[in-house]
Amino acid sequence: MTFDSMWSSIEPIGREASTGGYRRYAWTGADATLREWFAAEAAARGLGLVTDRAGNQWAWWGDPDAAVAVGRPGVVIGSHLDSVPDGGAFDGPLGVVSALAVVDVLKARGLEPSRPVAVVNFVDEEGARFGIACAGSRMITGKLEAGKALGLRDVDGVTMAEAMAAAGHAVEHVGPDIETLRRIGTFVELHVEQGRALIDLGRPVAVGSVIRPHGRWRVDLAGEANHAGTTLLEDRHDPMLDLATTVLAAREAAAGHGCVATVGKVRLEPNGVNAIPSRVTAWLDARGPGETAVRAVVAAAVRQSGAVAVEESWTPETVFDIPLAQRLSTLLDDAPMLATGAGHDAGVLAMAGLSTAMLFVRNPTGISHSPAEFAEREGCHRGVEALAAVTEDLAR
Amino acid sequence: MTFDSMWSSIEPIGREASTGGYRRYAWTGADATLREWFAAEAAARGLGLVTDRAGNQWAWWGDPDAAVAVGRPGVVIGSHLDSVPDGGAFDGPLGVVSALAVVDVLKARGLEPSRPVAVVNFVDEEGARFGIACAGSRMITGKLEAGKALGLRDVDGVTMAEAMAAAGHAVEHVGPDIETLRRIGTFVELHVEQGRALIDLGRPVAVGSVIRPHGRWRVDLAGEANHAGTTLLEDRHDPMLDLATTVLAAREAAAGHGCVATVGKVRLEPNGVNAIPSRVTAWLDARGPGETAVRAVVAAAVRQSGAVAVEESWTPETVFDIPLAQRLSTLLDDAPMLATGAGHDAGVLAMAGLSTAMLFVRNPTGISHSPAEFAEREGCHRGVEALAAVTEDLAR
Repeated sequence: MTFDSMWSSIEPIGREASTGGYRRYAWTGADATLREWFAAEAAARGLGLVTDRAGNQWAWWGDPDAAVAVGRPGVVIGSHLDSVPDGGAFDGPLGVVSALAVVDVLKARGLEPSRPVAVVNFVDEEGARFGIACAGSRMITGKLEAGKALGLRDVDGVTMAEAMAAAGHAVEHVGPDIETLRRIGTFVELHVEQGRALIDLGRPVAVGSVIRPHGRWRVDLAGEANHAGTTLLEDRHDPMLDLATTVLAAREAAAGHGCVATVGKVRLEPNGVNAIPSRVTAWLDARGPGETAVRAVVAAAVRQSGAVAVEESWTPETVFDIPLAQRLSTLLDDAPMLATGAGHDAGVLAMAGLSTAMLFVRNPTGISHSPAEFAEREGCHRGVEALAAVTEDLAR
Repeated sequence: MTFDSMWSSIEPIGREASTGGYRRYAWTGADATLREWFAAEAAARGLGLVTDRAGNQWAWWGDPDAAVAVGRPGVVIGSHLDSVPDGGAFDGPLGVVSALAVVDVLKARGLEPSRPVAVVNFVDEEGARFGIACAGSRMITGKLEAGKALGLRDVDGVTMAEAMAAAGHAVEHVGPDIETLRRIGTFVELHVEQGRALIDLGRPVAVGSVIRPHGRWRVDLAGEANHAGTTLLEDRHDPMLDLATTVLAAREAAAGHGCVATVGKVRLEPNGVNAIPSRVTAWLDARGPGETAVRAVVAAAVRQSGAVAVEESWTPETVFDIPLAQRLSTLLDDAPMLATGAGHDAGVLAMAGLSTAMLFVRNPTGISHSPAEFAEREGCHRGVEALAAVTEDLAR
């Protein structure tokens, strides 16, 4: 199948009609459909499908273990197929579909790679269901401990272990997966750009330089539930006031420190129109040029409320393989190098010491994690060409 | 059954173990269990059970229509059995259980009422599921149009019509119910106090004077969904900032106008940790000494955001039947008269021109709409005595 026909075939999967956005969460029915689609595409190309301990899918062209034995481990390309809540069509799937298209391009050119090539579909990159992003790559690299991961619960109280088991994945094997990691000589993740730098630069594709440090914090704001109509203002302990000061302080501090800060998820208890909340839980996402700046923003956000910001995840600055990035940039007509504020499986693998790179495909809206996320079809094709050139160069 | 044994028998119904609060929402399984319990209690006392067009349950001691024919319509006592999300045990059920206990007291005294007496269980007083409070009394008085009511949806998208039908109620009969209303000569609703006035006054029971004007507004704050990590602050349209200013402005304006204002319910879309919300919907509850003051608070709340506050409900000041209130106060050792900021079915019936009164039973915590809502058992018994005295006086 061509890029266009593959794109059309997955377009309806997990799409929410009311918003036009995608709800492709890990280990759900939509996810299973996408995983079956991936397996079928691998089979159609004669690729050997391997599912690793965490559930990531690898479709191999060539024998990965024979290559490891002679010290020439494979070239891996791909991304993920899951989405954030009401996310866009491109974040993740563009990298997987482009990688499959690259296999077709290289086969059509008659390439006989001297190193095996794999297309990967990482599971649960967005963490939309269980709260931890890049869960699939974190589990195989040991950055997310299996016991902790399997005990995570979704909003319905279902654990990751239960969800995996229901989807037919063998939970008892979850854990670090050295066999899988040693097969990876180089990983190149193609991704839709999450910003508008390429539009401004007039270029179709960029190479990733660094992932800026970022983290997530949970802020628990305690209140006292009471009747909205009969409780005097002076008798109230209304945690919504603390939420308001947290949101405004986070924004102000982010502006002052050159960071970004977002409260995108909130839970009110009991969330009734005529009841003062007993508790508000807010999640704060903060990212910036350095750890000191980011942590200053988090501290400022909770200063007035006196609440504690509980760190749920922290990722230090991740620098991709610099010589590799320069090699790719040169190969792609001196493609610009871009830093990003978004986490990716490529970043997790880089932190684990693997050689990784990223390619970004132009996004005319600059918007991502939204139904408005976009890449022009011509831009997607340019992305496939770039990834094909890079893969051919690395696998020759 | 005595007050105490009745209280024990309903205590477990609809209780959420994780919070200790009640989730007794209209037309759910918990509600059905409570309605069956009410019907059984009516049958055990030989009362004639009538379910009206909206689903309110009336348990009659004596023939209500014969009484109407001779111009001596009945004395109705009772309240409701549903709850707000994670509400307390007393708001509603105290009035129903006390009313049933009063029938026992009066029968034990050998009273042969010259007017029939009914115990009522109003359906859907809190509006927790479909968003409109006092739905049962509003429907029979025509204050809530049947077509509008039946089309209301809960958070799962289930309409009130579907929920009613699933619970076995005949949806096609929903509408104003003159036959039911003409049977009501006087309605007295006993309710747990929602404040601490009786503690300060050292009295066990109060008589209601007025319900202060109150309303609910929905505030839609539009944003633009985007990635929390990659979107520059200056490119954001983050509706959480508008939520923050709305909450703080509402509080400040309420303090300035002698009102109360509460944002107790919020919905974020998509509510993802790493996405700027595309939309925040907030519900503002505001109440005060007069309409002008309340509306000034609402206007101030949305001034900075420029959002529109959509009025979902408005209830003007409701004055109970003043001679009746004075008669009850005198009968109860000059019980104090209290205004309240909470809406009640008694208020809806008063607005419909019926003679209604309320009795409030002391609440040591002053808290309501929370698991901490409380009335001492001794206080409950004093409430039953007071309601028995009032009912005997009115029905003699």
